[in-house]
Amino acid sequence: VVPSERELIEELLAPLARPDDGSLGLTDDAALVAHRPGHDLVVTQDTLVEGVHFRAADAPGQVAQKSLRVNLSDLAAKGAAARCYFLSLALPERLDRAWIEAFVAGLKRDQEEFAVALFGGDTVRSPGPLMVSITACGDVPEGEMVRRSGAHAGERVYVSGTIGDGTLGLAALDGGVPAVDGLDGPARDELARRYLVPRPRLALAPALCAHASAAMDVSDGLVGDLGLLARASGVSAEIEAAAVPLSAAARRAIAGDGALLARALTGGDDYEILCTVAPQSSAAFEAAAGKAGVAVTAIGTIVEGGAGPVVRDAAGDALVFERGSYAHF
Amino acid sequence: VVPSERELIEELLAPLARPDDGSLGLTDDAALVAHRPGHDLVVTQDTLVEGVHFRAADAPGQVAQKSLRVNLSDLAAKGAAARCYFLSLALPERLDRAWIEAFVAGLKRDQEEFAVALFGGDTVRSPGPLMVSITACGDVPEGEMVRRSGAHAGERVYVSGTIGDGTLGLAALDGGVPAVDGLDGPARDELARRYLVPRPRLALAPALCAHASAAMDVSDGLVGDLGLLARASGVSAEIEAAAVPLSAAARRAIAGDGALLARALTGGDDYEILCTVAPQSSAAFEAAAGKAGVAVTAIGTIVEGGAGPVVRDAAGDALVFERGSYAHF
Repeated sequence: VVPSERELIEELLAPLARPDDGSLGLTDDAALVAHRPGHDLVVTQDTLVEGVHFRAADAPGQVAQKSLRVNLSDLAAKGAAARCYFLSLALPERLDRAWIEAFVAGLKRDQEEFAVALFGGDTVRSPGPLMVSITACGDVPEGEMVRRSGAHAGERVYVSGTIGDGTLGLAALDGGVPAVDGLDGPARDELARRYLVPRPRLALAPALCAHASAAMDVSDGLVGDLGLLARASGVSAEIEAAAVPLSAAARRAIAGDGALLARALTGGDDYEILCTVAPQSSAAFEAAAGKAGVAVTAIGTIVEGGAGPVVRDAAGDALVFERGSYAHF
Repeated sequence: VVPSERELIEELLAPLARPDDGSLGLTDDAALVAHRPGHDLVVTQDTLVEGVHFRAADAPGQVAQKSLRVNLSDLAAKGAAARCYFLSLALPERLDRAWIEAFVAGLKRDQEEFAVALFGGDTVRSPGPLMVSITACGDVPEGEMVRRSGAHAGERVYVSGTIGDGTLGLAALDGGVPAVDGLDGPARDELARRYLVPRPRLALAPALCAHASAAMDVSDGLVGDLGLLARASGVSAEIEAAAVPLSAAARRAIAGDGALLARALTGGDDYEILCTVAPQSSAAFEAAAGKAGVAVTAIGTIVEGGAGPVVRDAAGDALVFERGSYAHF
């Protein structure tokens, strides 16, 4: 049975909010986002559409987690601690109460894991696909938000975690890529999980604030996103393909089909942090990241110039990509 | 020709933002919403779906204005001054550059009228209807946000402007309601305009902060929304149908078909302010509203009790409505 709007808000969503915080228990027109002294408020908004950012068959709890996590990933990249979020749900009629309960359970898990609370939003009926729009707010020490535009020539380029798992995970779910289909079940599952449930690197935020000159999250492909960061900073970059960290599963897929390297470097859905760090701060950054439990890997260098980033293979030759990143249209 | 995502952001949306404010010119992952000293930040989120909240045939500039204005209306109801907003656009492929330019022109007009700026957002492709999700932020003097829950027995119930024009305007656009179809062209146009382009009552915000004990905006129908306010405050309300302010056009439609009074009182899309004011503050509230150029009308009284609000006709009998408000599902 499809719940009414009132049931949806009062019975399913309100338990995600606290009556005694700025959410006002979801009983008002708006929420109150109190100022945290000594901090700036960082706000980001990402919308996910069924059939575009997730598949209709994906588990509702995972759709909820992905929708929240891609926003938390943006906060992490800016050096912010997550605080609260606003959720707009456009629900097709076919999604019943059980589906919504599972969606809410996914949010609840992530609220606990990432210490973030629902503060408000909207629920509407969709005559088309499910859409989830989230606006997330976080706190960064005053004046210390890490921007895309702060990179300088000579600085090192780092990424967190491993690159390419998300896009290869989508291939694993969709099938039809022989070198991915040929992986064993656990490897395919591992890749698929990276696509379905990204890991926002909030633990890395303090290290970014302290040491990074520029940062962003990798959502649309490493090469394209590095191009955006370089362009915003008025510089270029050179990275080594061999230095880009890959998971064991991705490494095996690429060993089976070398063309998948390009897909890993440009495919998107990584939700890892891309950042730049001055050479004299590198040791401290690596130490802080290690203490936070987040692997970071130096993959290249920021250089002068306005051209797009160059990715070199082991022989030092520049790789050419059909496109640097995923474009929604 | 459909613009690319990059063209959409850089050529069409970025001119709505300033490079030197917290939007960072839409070139970063997130925006910085600076603290305004002595103020609290009020945040609201409303999503509009084609075919549900507006019609596919509606002019793009008006769709943009309605999407922004319903959010500004929430800020106004809380006593806040609007500051900035985040826009998520889920665009069907059929909408071309000309459509998007007209949509952006509508936003630009309203940004100037209401002194609000685009701070960020997201653009995605929709395989279904157009959806517009906006998160708006405003500033209210510290500790003075006007809540739904502050009403007390004995206080007066006020509404701004006129009630019922939005829902009668939808009837005028859709046709098929004889008493509305029978109005002259200018009257139908006036009603239609109220549905298409609501008027957020931001000018009333300071008067609400200073004098109202509770407030909300009327979006889903006066009777139902008054019920929400009363319930949040732990009280009930009695209002007189004859006291509810109606436009000349609405009055004429209802004169032609008495059943339309119920539609006016319960139909929604008013985006007027509903508030409660203590008797000893009424004169000051009315004076402040008059100075702000917003008509306000006392329509009844807050009373003890937990039942839904009672609407009395001229004879003092309680009117019975099929439903108190518009429910999305």
